[in-house]
Amino acid sequence: MTMGSNRRQFLKVAGASAVACATASPSSALAGGSPDPAAAAAAVPFTLGMASYTLRAFPVDQAIEMTKRLGLTRICFKDFHLKLDAAPEVIAETVAKVKAAGLDLYAGGVIYMKSEAEVDRAFAYAKAAGFKMIIGVPTYELLPYTSKKAQEYDIPVAIHNHGPDNPLFPTPQSAYERIASLDRRLGLCMDVGHTQRSGVDPSESAEKYFDRLLDIHIKDTSAATAQGKTVEIGRGVIDIPKLIRTLTRLGYKGTLALEYEKDDKDPLPGSAESIGYLRGVIAALA
Amino acid sequence: MTMGSNRRQFLKVAGASAVACATASPSSALAGGSPDPAAAAAAVPFTLGMASYTLRAFPVDQAIEMTKRLGLTRICFKDFHLKLDAAPEVIAETVAKVKAAGLDLYAGGVIYMKSEAEVDRAFAYAKAAGFKMIIGVPTYELLPYTSKKAQEYDIPVAIHNHGPDNPLFPTPQSAYERIASLDRRLGLCMDVGHTQRSGVDPSESAEKYFDRLLDIHIKDTSAATAQGKTVEIGRGVIDIPKLIRTLTRLGYKGTLALEYEKDDKDPLPGSAESIGYLRGVIAALA
Repeated sequence: MTMGSNRRQFLKVAGASAVACATASPSSALAGGSPDPAAAAAAVPFTLGMASYTLRAFPVDQAIEMTKRLGLTRICFKDFHLKLDAAPEVIAETVAKVKAAGLDLYAGGVIYMKSEAEVDRAFAYAKAAGFKMIIGVPTYELLPYTSKKAQEYDIPVAIHNHGPDNPLFPTPQSAYERIASLDRRLGLCMDVGHTQRSGVDPSESAEKYFDRLLDIHIKDTSAATAQGKTVEIGRGVIDIPKLIRTLTRLGYKGTLALEYEKDDKDPLPGSAESIGYLRGVIAALA
Repeated sequence: MTMGSNRRQFLKVAGASAVACATASPSSALAGGSPDPAAAAAAVPFTLGMASYTLRAFPVDQAIEMTKRLGLTRICFKDFHLKLDAAPEVIAETVAKVKAAGLDLYAGGVIYMKSEAEVDRAFAYAKAAGFKMIIGVPTYELLPYTSKKAQEYDIPVAIHNHGPDNPLFPTPQSAYERIASLDRRLGLCMDVGHTQRSGVDPSESAEKYFDRLLDIHIKDTSAATAQGKTVEIGRGVIDIPKLIRTLTRLGYKGTLALEYEKDDKDPLPGSAESIGYLRGVIAALA
């Protein structure tokens, strides 16, 4: 699988080589346990980040603080932290606050879109906030319209898959097949938990659909079935070392955004354990 | 280095092969990210645990709850959680509580001993609590007396090293040289942070002094000098993957007890990140 032209386009939109980002991020997500943490950071092409759904019970200021405490440098916002219908001045103020905290607010989502008006609103919102991509779930019928808007705004849309209990995009494959003929700005946000819960190995999906893989929600699940519940990364059934090896080999340059669904009122310990686990795997494989 | 007779003796005292313990512990400290967590657990001979100094600002009930939340199954108690002069019924009640919580209260310490009376008290305390070892710091002059008592009680004493800013046992070497001619029940609790702060690679010390290595306090440090401060494991300068590889190769069957000194009023996130990091390294190397 080679990097498609839209993937290059996306990286251009992102404003920088992710490799350079990873190398530059001080004591970042990728700082490993080696005597030279920068060496471990440079060893993987991707960056760890936060999907703010994890912090949904907390106001935006606390969400920023918690993300910083975990040593992360990237965040994508669920609407709890920036309402889809927020006034332009609220959007500007919030975005400025995140930037001042040293975080890259790279995306918004997951944004569900059930009408053309909701697609329109999502793109206007993303443009106002300066998001580099939308993590979204349009209905199947809205995909051609979403594709047109992605071209118009030049903002990629990463389709988020949601597991065996949701008929809309249960797997990366179900999204890939529906966007393959559409504009290359339509891609995937692979939710590794929901993918595994569908009985599909996320490493295999990453490899198969890599040319459209724009973002990843990283988590772990207690079982590879619909009954699987989110657990701290490392305590579940997902083969995380295999996923990290696969993404490194493929040269995935996006984000692994932690979406820790457990402990909504007290998410920091489980989030920290999960991020620590990812860093440990990265350091050991470096 | 082969396992000395006292090491076998210690394992006998411990009541079980640590390998068997590791394999048996359900969703334990060692559960890796592989589809079969038991496989990752079985891949390392040692067990992760908690040094309760980490939780010194919390009463014993909360310390137990926090340790359980981290998925750990072993704990050693600093005197904050069981006073050295506690009444026998308090000791019995506390030990029963820890056991009922499913934790193995394997040791007490660090216990400082500055007189024969303090050595006597430490052994009486350890016997009453059923500790499998004392993690201790007797003065250099008290080592022969401590050795005699260790024989008498058949309770090993793991000498804890304390770094370049403390003249008493700054490194594992400084302890090893002073106990080499004494009873083999005298061994080492290597504090990997203080070892690294002394400019010594803890992996090398583990290898050199393995025949007396009874326990390990695991942590990370921001610098390999006296100025180094405790940080979340993985954010510092210690080569943790090398240490895990070394201990696995040597067949270390003891505990890696987390002593996280930072954030004393809110230690759970940093502790969780540290334990997650260790599990990630273990899973990736499995």
